[in-house]
Amino acid sequence: MLDKLCSEAKKASLVLGCSTAEQRNGALAEMATALVGRKDEILKANALDIENAKAKGISTAMLDRLTLTEERIAAISNAVKKVIALPDPLECSDHWVRPNGLNIEKRRVPFGVIAIIYEARPNVTADAAALCIKSGNAVILRGGSEAINSNIAVANILGDAVKAAGLPKECIGIVTDTSRETANALMRAKGKIDLLIPRGGKSLIRSVVDNATVPVIETGAGNCHVYFDATADEKTALDVIDNAKRSRPSVCNAAESLLVHEAVAESILPKVRARLDNVELRGCEKTLAILKDITPATNEDYFTEYNDYILTVKVVSSLEEAIDHINLHGTGHSEAIITQDPENAVVFCNSVDASAVYVNASTRFTDGEEFGFGAEIGISTQKMHARGPMGLSEMTTYKYVIRGNGQVR
Amino acid sequence: MLDKLCSEAKKASLVLGCSTAEQRNGALAEMATALVGRKDEILKANALDIENAKAKGISTAMLDRLTLTEERIAAISNAVKKVIALPDPLECSDHWVRPNGLNIEKRRVPFGVIAIIYEARPNVTADAAALCIKSGNAVILRGGSEAINSNIAVANILGDAVKAAGLPKECIGIVTDTSRETANALMRAKGKIDLLIPRGGKSLIRSVVDNATVPVIETGAGNCHVYFDATADEKTALDVIDNAKRSRPSVCNAAESLLVHEAVAESILPKVRARLDNVELRGCEKTLAILKDITPATNEDYFTEYNDYILTVKVVSSLEEAIDHINLHGTGHSEAIITQDPENAVVFCNSVDASAVYVNASTRFTDGEEFGFGAEIGISTQKMHARGPMGLSEMTTYKYVIRGNGQVR
Repeated sequence: MLDKLCSEAKKASLVLGCSTAEQRNGALAEMATALVGRKDEILKANALDIENAKAKGISTAMLDRLTLTEERIAAISNAVKKVIALPDPLECSDHWVRPNGLNIEKRRVPFGVIAIIYEARPNVTADAAALCIKSGNAVILRGGSEAINSNIAVANILGDAVKAAGLPKECIGIVTDTSRETANALMRAKGKIDLLIPRGGKSLIRSVVDNATVPVIETGAGNCHVYFDATADEKTALDVIDNAKRSRPSVCNAAESLLVHEAVAESILPKVRARLDNVELRGCEKTLAILKDITPATNEDYFTEYNDYILTVKVVSSLEEAIDHINLHGTGHSEAIITQDPENAVVFCNSVDASAVYVNASTRFTDGEEFGFGAEIGISTQKMHARGPMGLSEMTTYKYVIRGNGQVR
Repeated sequence: MLDKLCSEAKKASLVLGCSTAEQRNGALAEMATALVGRKDEILKANALDIENAKAKGISTAMLDRLTLTEERIAAISNAVKKVIALPDPLECSDHWVRPNGLNIEKRRVPFGVIAIIYEARPNVTADAAALCIKSGNAVILRGGSEAINSNIAVANILGDAVKAAGLPKECIGIVTDTSRETANALMRAKGKIDLLIPRGGKSLIRSVVDNATVPVIETGAGNCHVYFDATADEKTALDVIDNAKRSRPSVCNAAESLLVHEAVAESILPKVRARLDNVELRGCEKTLAILKDITPATNEDYFTEYNDYILTVKVVSSLEEAIDHINLHGTGHSEAIITQDPENAVVFCNSVDASAVYVNASTRFTDGEEFGFGAEIGISTQKMHARGPMGLSEMTTYKYVIRGNGQVR
């Protein structure tokens, strides 16, 4: 079944890849309208998912993420509409003429078929589909089993909308069998899937990165640090660590570690504890000498992305020690320095090896919307192809088109 | 030993990554001078390799590729000098200010440590090292065992030159143990190697792509086609297929298959046979009806990159059949159409899924020098990160540097 889905998506991708921006935007408009127009079908399917989830006794938080309402469907539809207004990522191309008269065009093109493996959030179904259609890619969606009825309903409605706009319905494919086997088969569909993007928690990402033989963009692992330099402004420092740790601890751009220069540790650490009053601090020896009653941090702690109200605290004796600690323990996601020393800021930005390096701002800004990309498909923590928030242009590749009049070499 | 080499390279890469273009060009100048100045050391090491190779009884062609002379060392030195003049790939960056005052810079940065696995061509040692230094990357070189003495001599001289220019000698690392185990260890040095580029024959590339857990760019597999459309100009068609097949059959951008529209098959195929008189043709049934005495092509033939004086020939009844055949059998490298119909040229360029698509020119032009990149590290056949000839800019990635004054989200 997966084979059929992949080959239909590949065929559809060839048609979609040759479509105009107007056609793709037309499909997005149909998609946005259909989501609202056929909301009853979605709500009915979602009710089934909720019933099954309750029977299984899933957590309230997970139940909330799974639940769709009329308002939420309207919001999903509006998100699709917003994608229409974004610039066409296939527009930009470059060309030059060689001395032998060959005209070389470097042309932005879609990947072809993008597969998305994600968890129990039915809104991802429409978000991912919209970004794929906009960038000219057919999509194969493989969401979590908890949301399968909602996902099938949404994908079916979106496929109909794409067809109504004159493009192949198979541009939007959905894996209806949510067993582990189909996920594995998708990860190994070499030559059939041009790009696989996992969206979800650590174990999902790890499983995809370890098992996939198709090209993957690794997203989302965030063991992020905030470093208070010796010259850190105290208010900025406290505001940033509070925001980075507590505004949304469950997300990848939240901070997991605080590094403090020894020159300011004694004065600022008690204030950190007072401010982050609902956060469990785990400290190094030097931290424990100042905050006597907190838990000692283990080596494993420094490597852990808690996604929770826990923060490791380490006192360092130099900027260099902070940088080395970050480069050893970080995941290359988002790292911040709080400093009033412009030279130290430059050294930190040059030497920290991460997708986003901040000076006097919160790590929480690593996000496509916040960067001004309008939408994002994920945050890459790898160096190849894309790094940091990935917008529409990161969902494209390029080809060279060379026109001659008989040139040989 | 490999662990030490990797950690030294990583440390060196942090220094190199913060160097100026002037420093890197200074190192390249020292490298070019040292290669010529210490040519006797290189020739002595090379003599040892040649002696060993002769004792093993390797082919004359391989012996020729292995052999260095004073002239060849001068040519290698000149190639390094040419890299100095190329634009700095780390220069280009972009920045914008968000409504909240965050200043976002998208900055070109090196990958860090690039590993190159290659075969018995000692010139690759200097070429690859020069491109890595220019792009700010430390390099770990792992060449074939046949050239090991030459490679060690060259790498050592280049490392000394980098040091003389004030950068760490460890920017240029060489794997001295050429066992299969060290190659495998290099492919699996996750977190230590930022990018691995294999350069060599099919079996080397396949082994790297199948075994590596570090990020790899797949290069060089080229099952390239030339398609004669119904309106093909006969002279152009014959010139291009001759050049694409015979100018250098051993390389990846040589043609392996000829597709001919049935409207012109009868008139042009006998001329193809006459022109390519030292090429073995293997044809489809329709081809055999015209060229009665040639070998029939098997399904396997259509998937084979011969790198030899062999060409499959297939008669197709439409442009669409040609495109489908290419998309099924090609490796996404270089594909050409010979046509006088501008509309068919557009359809072919849009629909063929390859890194380089040619209209009325030879596939042999897929090459960094021919595209005007000045130098290339390889030809990518993948879609992620880089496609087609990879110059200096494809050896870089980027990071976001965000400057604020206390912004929180």
